[in-house]
Formats: sequence, C-alpha cells, structure tokens
Amino acid sequence: MANGPVLVEVLRGDAVESAHSGAVAVVDARGTLRLAIGDVDRPVFPRSAVKVLQALPLVAGGAADRLGLDDAELALACASHNGEPAHAATAAAMLAKAGVGVDALECGTHWPMHEASARALAAAGAVPDARHNNCSGKHAGFVCVACLLAAGGAPGRPDGDAVRRRAAGYVRPDHPVMREVAAALQAATGVDPARAPVGTDGCSIPTWALPLRALALAFARVGTGQGLDADRARAVQRLRRAVAAAPFMVAGSGRFDTRLMEALGERVFCKVGAEGVYTAALPELGLGVAVKVDDGQARAAEVVMATLVGALLPLDAPARAVVDGLAAPVLRNWNGLEVGRLRAAAPLRSALAPG
Amino acid sequence: MANGPVLVEVLRGDAVESAHSGAVAVVDARGTLRLAIGDVDRPVFPRSAVKVLQALPLVAGGAADRLGLDDAELALACASHNGEPAHAATAAAMLAKAGVGVDALECGTHWPMHEASARALAAAGAVPDARHNNCSGKHAGFVCVACLLAAGGAPGRPDGDAVRRRAAGYVRPDHPVMREVAAALQAATGVDPARAPVGTDGCSIPTWALPLRALALAFARVGTGQGLDADRARAVQRLRRAVAAAPFMVAGSGRFDTRLMEALGERVFCKVGAEGVYTAALPELGLGVAVKVDDGQARAAEVVMATLVGALLPLDAPARAVVDGLAAPVLRNWNGLEVGRLRAAAPLRSALAPG
Repeated sequence: MANGPVLVEVLRGDAVESAHSGAVAVVDARGTLRLAIGDVDRPVFPRSAVKVLQALPLVAGGAADRLGLDDAELALACASHNGEPAHAATAAAMLAKAGVGVDALECGTHWPMHEASARALAAAGAVPDARHNNCSGKHAGFVCVACLLAAGGAPGRPDGDAVRRRAAGYVRPDHPVMREVAAALQAATGVDPARAPVGTDGCSIPTWALPLRALALAFARVGTGQGLDADRARAVQRLRRAVAAAPFMVAGSGRFDTRLMEALGERVFCKVGAEGVYTAALPELGLGVAVKVDDGQARAAEVVMATLVGALLPLDAPARAVVDGLAAPVLRNWNGLEVGRLRAAAPLRSALAPG
Repeated sequence: MANGPVLVEVLRGDAVESAHSGAVAVVDARGTLRLAIGDVDRPVFPRSAVKVLQALPLVAGGAADRLGLDDAELALACASHNGEPAHAATAAAMLAKAGVGVDALECGTHWPMHEASARALAAAGAVPDARHNNCSGKHAGFVCVACLLAAGGAPGRPDGDAVRRRAAGYVRPDHPVMREVAAALQAATGVDPARAPVGTDGCSIPTWALPLRALALAFARVGTGQGLDADRARAVQRLRRAVAAAPFMVAGSGRFDTRLMEALGERVFCKVGAEGVYTAALPELGLGVAVKVDDGQARAAEVVMATLVGALLPLDAPARAVVDGLAAPVLRNWNGLEVGRLRAAAPLRSALAPG
C-alpha cells in the first residue's frame, strides 16, 4: 500500500521537518464526489469519527426521550472527551437516568486525556474509573439503549438489575445494541458492515473499515438528513444541535472540535477519530467531509479539517481568525519560544484553490 | 517535498490502518553508503538523536574528569530521559559537582514524560522543575563544560557565581559552550553547521538539519572512533560505555533505548530524537545508522531501528526475543485486548533481505 500526497508540512524555523500524507473526500448528499485527494476508495477504520452515527439508535429509537437526556448528555454520547470533571459527571448522570452505575460501562478505564485533570485526580489521591474513559458518554448511551430494550413495551423505568442484564456484553457485535449501531452505520454510509474489514476499537466495540467516500456521504446525510429514514433524520438534527449547544462536552478544554464548534455553532459538525481520521458535516452546503492522515497523527488531520472548513465555508472575521489559527498552529518549545508551525501543503492548497 | 517509501505498517485486526514512510541510511566509517532507503541526502533535523555528539565537549575537553562524573551522569548527559526520580536526582548531582543549582539550567520545565512519575509528583503536592525536563542531563553537561571554562587553567573548582556567569546564555549559538558543541557536530558529521538549515530545539539550543547519510557517518565514527581526533575518539568510547553501564539513565522505564541497550549492552548504541529520528552505532560492524520517519512518529522509528538491528547483528535467543518484540509491538486497548500490531513494511523488509 502506497501513501497518498503530502497534505500537511511541519516547519522548524524555515525548513520542513516532517510531512503528513493522506486522503480527503468531500461528497454531497446524492453521493457525488465533489473533491477527492488521494485514494478515497480505500477502506479506513473510522474509529471515533462516527460516534454521531453510533449514537443514532439512542435518539432515533426513543431512549433519549424516554430517559430525558439533555443537550450535554447527547453531546457526550457523540464525544471523545477529555475526562475533565464535567465530562465524568455527565457520564454518571446518564447512567443514573438508566438506573445503573459506572460498573455497567464496558469501555475500560484510563487516566483523563486532559493532563491537568489527570494530575488533579492524582493530587486528590484518587484513581480514574470508566467515567474518565474518553468514550464513556458513547458507552453510557449504549447502556441507555439497553435500558429501553429492558423496558420492552412497558411504561416506567425498569430496575437497575434488569438494565444491567440487558446491557451486559453490549460491546459484542452480536448484542442487540451493537446490531442497532451496525444498522445505523449501514444506513448512513450505504456499506454493509458484514462485508467490511473489522477491527476492535480502543473501547472494545467493533470498528468497520469503510471507504473514505462512504464516510463523507454519511456526513452529508448527517448534515442534511437526506437519504435517512425520518427517525434517523430527526436524530441527526437533534444530535448536531445538542453538540452545537454543548461543544465542551464533545471534546473539552483546548480541543479542536470544541474550539471550532464554539466558533461556528451549527454551521459545522466535526469529529476526530483515532489514527488521523476526521469527519465533518457542513449542513448549509449539503456536504460531508472525511479525512484520513496515512500515519495516524491528529495534528495533521486537524490542519486538513481547518483548511477545508476555511476554504469551503464563507466566514466572518472572528470565525476566520479561529479557523485560520487552527489551520496553521504555532509550535512552541518548553521555554515558550516559537520554534515552528504546521501548514497545509501544496497538494491540499491547490485542490482547494478557487477556479 | 514527496515522502519516502512506506517503512512501517500499523495493523488493526488483519487490515492496515496506518502507514509510515521514511528514509534509512547505513554508512561505514569510511563514509561508504552500505544501505539506503528513500532520500538520504535530504537534510533532517537530528534533534536529540545527536546528544552523544553534543556531549563530546564535556568528555573530550576534560570537564567530566575534572568534576568526577560517573557512568550514570555521563549516560544522563546523552539522555532524553523520563523525568523519573533517579533521573532528576542525577541531574541535580551533576549540577552540584559544578557548584550550582537547578536555576543554572536553561532547558525549561515540563512534567515528567513518564506519566506515573508525573502523577506521583502531583500526588505529593509538588510541581516539576528543570531537572525533570527530558534534556536536563545534556544541559547539566553544558553547565559542567562552562564550569571548566570558568576555572580557566587554575586548579580547584571555581565558585558557583563564577560558573553561573560563565554558563549564562549557553543555549545561544554564539556562546563558547555551544560553539564547542557545533565543532563536535562538524567533526563527526563532516558538515559545517553554518551552512545547514537551523532551527531551535525543544530545549532552546540550536538544531542543524543535516543529510541522513552524514548522521549515519557520524554514528559509524561514534562506534569506531575512526575519523575523529584522539580526544573525541576516547570520548565516544567512554560515553558509549557509560550508557551501556547505565541504560536506565539514557531513557527510563519501558523505553526503547533502555530496553534495547539493557539486552545488547555495548553491541549497540542507539538514541531517539524527536520527530521520528533515530540513530545508532553498531561498533562490531563498524556501521552507523540514521532513520527519519517522514511524519515524525517515534512508534515507527522504533520499529525501523529494531528491524535494522535484528537484520544486521547476529543475536542469541534471548537478545533475539527482545529485538523481535521491539520490531513488532502489539497494540492493546483500554481493556487489555490485543487489537493490532506494528510491522516492518515490504520496502524495508526487502532492502534487508539476505543476498
């Protein structure tokens, strides 16, 4: 497998120190490829970049309404969060609404990705639990789906033991919750997961490798609702609005997704995935975007995404300043000296040049 | 600038998720290129991969003997260490021998790279200082060189104030200490830094971009002493032996350099640099190795280095097990499940195939 064209360069002083290659697909809701750089047909593990699709059963199936999930909780269901205190508390609140505790989560435990929060936890003599896992909101959403399954058609809320039994093993491909997740992915991307290469994600659920153009199509559908059934079309709109209303929840302090959506609100829905994947919906343009950096580094995927957003969306001056800053981040050393920067490389710039 | 051939693949399940391109140069002490993959003439910022060269003035100039530096301290002078307690204590001991405190260091401060040490520091209510900077040993070595300069020809040790005055500003290219460092780099690589692209390193000293083949030549000289003057030839031998005697000091718990040199002792001297650079000397073969991963990721540079060492050096079974493990690391998720692995890609494997 050969790598794609160079999309991002890392400068130290005036010299290129490192370079990131990759692929970009921009697709409209009819599936027309509007921009392609590199190989957009090669399967890519989307990882956390499709969390909004994985959250569709939660909203489209009625669990979110039944349990009264608010914007922050729905945003956390779409999140790769920092494990800051507000993130952990929101995950706990979702689980409480489903009648269970943190032991229902099957995502595993890691220290908060946000280093200051990790050190604060250590300074308090505490250790992390599954609430701090960056995927805890998505998993709490899965547990909420299981809660609805446990209720069956009955009114009221099932007891915690019933929810725990119904949720147990929800990370497995053959569990009813994960089958609903796979169906939502297929509905949005048009690809049957059963025919795709499968891997296990960091949080233990399956991740299916899908062509980049199919991922971009899915996000055109996320932005427009076109091509989805009525329940899923309403669900993507509700999830996008929840994230726009609570952008801190989808990532956290200093993070790209939070900063971009704080600046642009509902005009963009974007989501990082591990290993250099990025997706976005641009509802006003009816476009979906999918990016894969060959080597898997987020720093490059962020520059590509900010460059795409800056080229595709008309922006006022304050939004332009945020997007341009994200597209050309400055590198500073341990003494705070500016030592370099990242920039979009020629193949990306020329693909986006007007005319 | 185009990227090089793919050297390392990252698998999730059985599918390639990410891929790292780059370049490799293996050179003998006469400067003959014995193996080349990718562009070995393109300048590469060596970053911390040349710390042993930056430590040459410390030993060749006599400061190490004058101050009685031991193996652990000399290894730390060549280190990108984890900031574990023993690393910080050793940096402090070097400074004490020069008659100064941590305030003499100009490398800046960051939390220990070793996360458990960072959290232990936080749990103790402490904050890091410059001793915890991964470059503190190198900088303490620079201060020791300044100490010798402050002494002039006089016997005994100058007082702390005199050392501090002589050391001040040692990170600047025009400081006498940094001029000695530049001269050592030129002597080993054969390249005049004044003609090379220059950047500022993470610890604020200059880093000059040099062709990969010149870096490999320098490490053939590190391994053999050939092509260096007598003082520098003795100095590289002493520094290699110090690192082999104290491999924990050059990196730390779980780190590639420490693990490889714990297993192979003086048979290999290797050193990571930021942004995907790796260098090594293989003294028994008279070869120097230099690696640059285009995208800057250490995980790939480690696989390349372990693959090269495994192909070039005859190894007994225990050493083979360590090297093979480093050449094909397993990826586990937050639940400890094996989800993938790294492996050398075809262009690297075929370049190393016998015959």
